[in-house]
Amino acid sequence: MATEINLDNIEDLAVGSAFLGTGGGGDPYLGSLLCREAIAKYGPVRLVSLDDLKDEDSVYVAAAIGAPTVMIEKLFSVEDQHHAVSLLERYLDRPATAITSAEIGGCNSMMPVAYAAMRGLPLVDGDGMGRAFPELQMTSMNVAGIACAPMTLADEHGNSLLIQANSGKKAELLARPVVAEMGASICMSCYPMTGAEARRGLVRDTISAAVAIGEAVRTRGDLSAIDRLVGALRQHAYYADAYRIFDGKITEIERTTQSGWVTGKCTIAAALGKREAQLTFKNENLVVYVDGVLRCVVPDLITVVDQETGQAIPTERLAYGQRVSVIGCSAPAPLKTPAALEVVGPACFGLSEAYTPIRALMEGKE
Amino acid sequence: MATEINLDNIEDLAVGSAFLGTGGGGDPYLGSLLCREAIAKYGPVRLVSLDDLKDEDSVYVAAAIGAPTVMIEKLFSVEDQHHAVSLLERYLDRPATAITSAEIGGCNSMMPVAYAAMRGLPLVDGDGMGRAFPELQMTSMNVAGIACAPMTLADEHGNSLLIQANSGKKAELLARPVVAEMGASICMSCYPMTGAEARRGLVRDTISAAVAIGEAVRTRGDLSAIDRLVGALRQHAYYADAYRIFDGKITEIERTTQSGWVTGKCTIAAALGKREAQLTFKNENLVVYVDGVLRCVVPDLITVVDQETGQAIPTERLAYGQRVSVIGCSAPAPLKTPAALEVVGPACFGLSEAYTPIRALMEGKE
Repeated sequence: MATEINLDNIEDLAVGSAFLGTGGGGDPYLGSLLCREAIAKYGPVRLVSLDDLKDEDSVYVAAAIGAPTVMIEKLFSVEDQHHAVSLLERYLDRPATAITSAEIGGCNSMMPVAYAAMRGLPLVDGDGMGRAFPELQMTSMNVAGIACAPMTLADEHGNSLLIQANSGKKAELLARPVVAEMGASICMSCYPMTGAEARRGLVRDTISAAVAIGEAVRTRGDLSAIDRLVGALRQHAYYADAYRIFDGKITEIERTTQSGWVTGKCTIAAALGKREAQLTFKNENLVVYVDGVLRCVVPDLITVVDQETGQAIPTERLAYGQRVSVIGCSAPAPLKTPAALEVVGPACFGLSEAYTPIRALMEGKE
Repeated sequence: MATEINLDNIEDLAVGSAFLGTGGGGDPYLGSLLCREAIAKYGPVRLVSLDDLKDEDSVYVAAAIGAPTVMIEKLFSVEDQHHAVSLLERYLDRPATAITSAEIGGCNSMMPVAYAAMRGLPLVDGDGMGRAFPELQMTSMNVAGIACAPMTLADEHGNSLLIQANSGKKAELLARPVVAEMGASICMSCYPMTGAEARRGLVRDTISAAVAIGEAVRTRGDLSAIDRLVGALRQHAYYADAYRIFDGKITEIERTTQSGWVTGKCTIAAALGKREAQLTFKNENLVVYVDGVLRCVVPDLITVVDQETGQAIPTERLAYGQRVSVIGCSAPAPLKTPAALEVVGPACFGLSEAYTPIRALMEGKE
């Protein structure tokens, strides 16, 4: 299990968290460039287990917020991230002793590494989702009763904001129009926690899980990349119900960037025969049907990967003609309690499907 | 000249500042109810002249922001105002020693009185416009190089925000969508100043001017209310070029509440003959034409008043059939410098007219 993030395993983290990001969180390649630069300059980042946090530690989230389509063109900097975190530190009058990720996925698992390197602080081995979600209230912290606010936003022009909202949903509603006005892709900090709260609120060991998954995909061997990926998922407590749901070619893609999100649909057709998969996303992939039959639905994970390399394709990079596999797997247990489904279940995304675990969908009906 | 605001002159301040508000700032009647309650509970509010502020004083703005149409239904409270000011005090770590108005107009000249009463602090005899304007960057402080940010917003549900923007215009752009999300009518504080900055940035003596104007309108005598109003304006250094531009009946009114503003147009037809005035507003009245001839344009003041009572009618209360007079007068000198016209001139409202002083428009071409 990884105990630090360094130049040797940063690529594994990028590839693994791109998978766990279920299409969202921004392109991990861009984030990994930022990380490489920061680690080269400041040195490796120590991973700290939730068990090793002191109760009185001050854990700050480093994260990006916005539309991944915009992140392709508008790069982040650790300095902007520092504006967001330091505004919150000033307001709370409590300096950070550890940094954490709000979500495992693309930029949002990379930025905290780069920022922890810059600050010389440890990174918590955990995150607020064990995957990625598009809205601020959709976190395990919120499920555990830890407040999203005070939260801060900072753009690349030196503008910043502090939001004191009385719920995670209200923080989302207040932040989102500002994100759009600040250019649809900016840095933030939210869910400030003590060490004790982090232990109660975060999904544990997800950074090292992402490193292990990425390592499996990237290590050449007898098995195909996708088989190695599914194999690695099946070895992990959270993601063990893992399936190669569908193979095919993207034949249709609808994508809109608005209100700071990218939403859309994607059709994938089998190479032979008439079978077809239908995928719906809002920053992240939310639900997939094969020939009209439900195969996986949020909060279980759905990721589109390249058939050759096994690498995840974020929703903003899906394109006509790509040969892909749709991989689905179970979500971490803390996201599937009745209380969690109130916050991250299908209804929270406007979907009419009831949550059904992927194992039941794939094995019960096949 | 008034030296305090008490139960005897609060109505004068309401009537006078409704006139100076040029149709914006919210209905002063609603604001005066809030003031009466606060003064009855906490006592009168001492007015402090800019000359009497100490350099090291901490002057905080108390203000409402939003669409006046919404303010009719959604009343303010001094507690919400306190959330906004105290968030800024906490951030700056500098307790308020005086309160000031951002603009003279309706709620925005009333709220600071009520809030100063609650805090037991003096109210500065001055404001940031000497009239009312619809956007945050449109102030004499901005013209004087004093920053709008950090600024704060607070709604009635306990949600609040702090904005650190690198310009007044950016503060406006970031605040406005949040105002809409918070219900289109909320409390704020902005342009925090030292006493020395207040002396340099504020338009002086405008609270006592509003009291004097209101007193003239409300004091019965031989002259009509409108003649008393115009007479009082002509006695004041700022507003001396004062004219009764047009008399008539409102025959058409177009009004839209969107993005946290109320914008529209109003047609006023003469009782006899075919003469017609055309008025355009964005929260405040901006420009008036009579039979196609320009008669007054922002930053000079244009206010629609009731023909009988001489009392100002805010833009959200303009209605078909009202018998009105359109009164215009000169703006305070600090708003008419070339630097000020860059911030509050006609082009800032998307108008194509060049600024021409009302005296030239009314006397040069009549």
